[in-house]
Amino acid sequence: MLDNPGSDRIKGVSRLNQKDARTESGLFLLDGPQGLKELSRRPGLAHEIFLTELAAERYFDELSTLESAGVEITLVSERVMAKLSQTTTPQGVVAVVSQIDTSLSEALATSPKLVVVLDQARDPGNAGTILRAADAAGADLVIFLQDSVDPYNPKLVRSTAGSILHVPFVRDVAPGEAISALRAAGLQVYATSASGESITTLRSSLTSPTAWVFGNEAHGVSDQVQEMADRLVALPIYGQAESLNLATAASVCLYASAFEQHSQD
Amino acid sequence: MLDNPGSDRIKGVSRLNQKDARTESGLFLLDGPQGLKELSRRPGLAHEIFLTELAAERYFDELSTLESAGVEITLVSERVMAKLSQTTTPQGVVAVVSQIDTSLSEALATSPKLVVVLDQARDPGNAGTILRAADAAGADLVIFLQDSVDPYNPKLVRSTAGSILHVPFVRDVAPGEAISALRAAGLQVYATSASGESITTLRSSLTSPTAWVFGNEAHGVSDQVQEMADRLVALPIYGQAESLNLATAASVCLYASAFEQHSQD
Repeated sequence: MLDNPGSDRIKGVSRLNQKDARTESGLFLLDGPQGLKELSRRPGLAHEIFLTELAAERYFDELSTLESAGVEITLVSERVMAKLSQTTTPQGVVAVVSQIDTSLSEALATSPKLVVVLDQARDPGNAGTILRAADAAGADLVIFLQDSVDPYNPKLVRSTAGSILHVPFVRDVAPGEAISALRAAGLQVYATSASGESITTLRSSLTSPTAWVFGNEAHGVSDQVQEMADRLVALPIYGQAESLNLATAASVCLYASAFEQHSQD
Repeated sequence: MLDNPGSDRIKGVSRLNQKDARTESGLFLLDGPQGLKELSRRPGLAHEIFLTELAAERYFDELSTLESAGVEITLVSERVMAKLSQTTTPQGVVAVVSQIDTSLSEALATSPKLVVVLDQARDPGNAGTILRAADAAGADLVIFLQDSVDPYNPKLVRSTAGSILHVPFVRDVAPGEAISALRAAGLQVYATSASGESITTLRSSLTSPTAWVFGNEAHGVSDQVQEMADRLVALPIYGQAESLNLATAASVCLYASAFEQHSQD
């Protein structure tokens, strides 16, 4: 069992908490048990798994599958886990995983019906929660435009509760390129804006393939993207709140689309 | 300007970050600027306001109103603010405010149409985000059942972005008492459960006054409350996610109700 958080090996893995090291290696850290089941189905993605003895007992089945697929599994002490996980409450397992983002053209070739576009979303917890909600709502693709948070940010990955491995995503796309490609692929582009039309009046249009654009936590969707969108759409505020949390608003919009698209099932 | 974070006065105020001191004093801390506007409309709630010079310039209008209403306003240094706020990024203003929870009978006498019930919800960020979403969706009341997080928890208060002052709430209610009283007040009680009926089949019923019960982040709504509820309701998962974040799921349910209730406006 590895017990030295200052060892070169652990320091090297822990560096994947920083973006530079992730970009250089093409790897990222998947923290927590939710991704283990998915990795056991796609063991080719996993480079290495670190876990505490307690976690090793708890996730015995998934680990057996991964081990027989040739994935290296290493037991570590609680203090090494604390160094790797960098959360206040480590869950005892951290996997080193190959980066999995796809390209815009490849993703759009699958004829997606529900797409999420993040325009300068900066909070990793919000973005991860949106990716998880996108997965739940059956979205086919998440696009991180330039100047959005890095999808491999450890806090973002954790907030997805495993959905980072479920939903295809693209990163670092220029706004103009994304919107043109989405429209060419037959999607209507709806950007959220407090001054837009109420989503309640647009319900019937949501059966069509839709890309939802969600913006920055403080400033909303950028002017550039608002101008390119087919419509600006607002969630009505029925009470006294000035606004909704970004992930909350996104979830309501995505589920509004999902309900309409699946009502024809 | 107060500059000593170790002074008795600052230590005393900072103790309101703990539940015991809040219960003893009947006060709580409202961190961040979102509540200032609301407090300037209800200055009787504010006991004292601490803020940095920078924040004092930025929120000059609200402070003038509060000061002329007789609220004590004290300038503090950044390090004193850090002691009071206990967040990683203090926003420069902390108000000491009277606790404002109401009683169940008083709240139900107003004939609420949309009520949120939190059953053993423990994460303050989730609970605060739900209270904010409840405000946005026009909910009339939030009930914190026994064993839920304290509504005056500083992280919860922050997550509400000011909505803690907008939506009436009740705390520490026994489950049986709450459900009986809600039903007697003419509300249908819908408890969320992964094994419930899909919300998509219940849409037309959502025009009626509804109390939504949301449960613990890991274990969901307790068996006791599930048995007392009129219906168990599930949000469909269209993708591969195992579940939704609690605040996300709650927001989708509350807005589903709000859309139906307001479609008759």
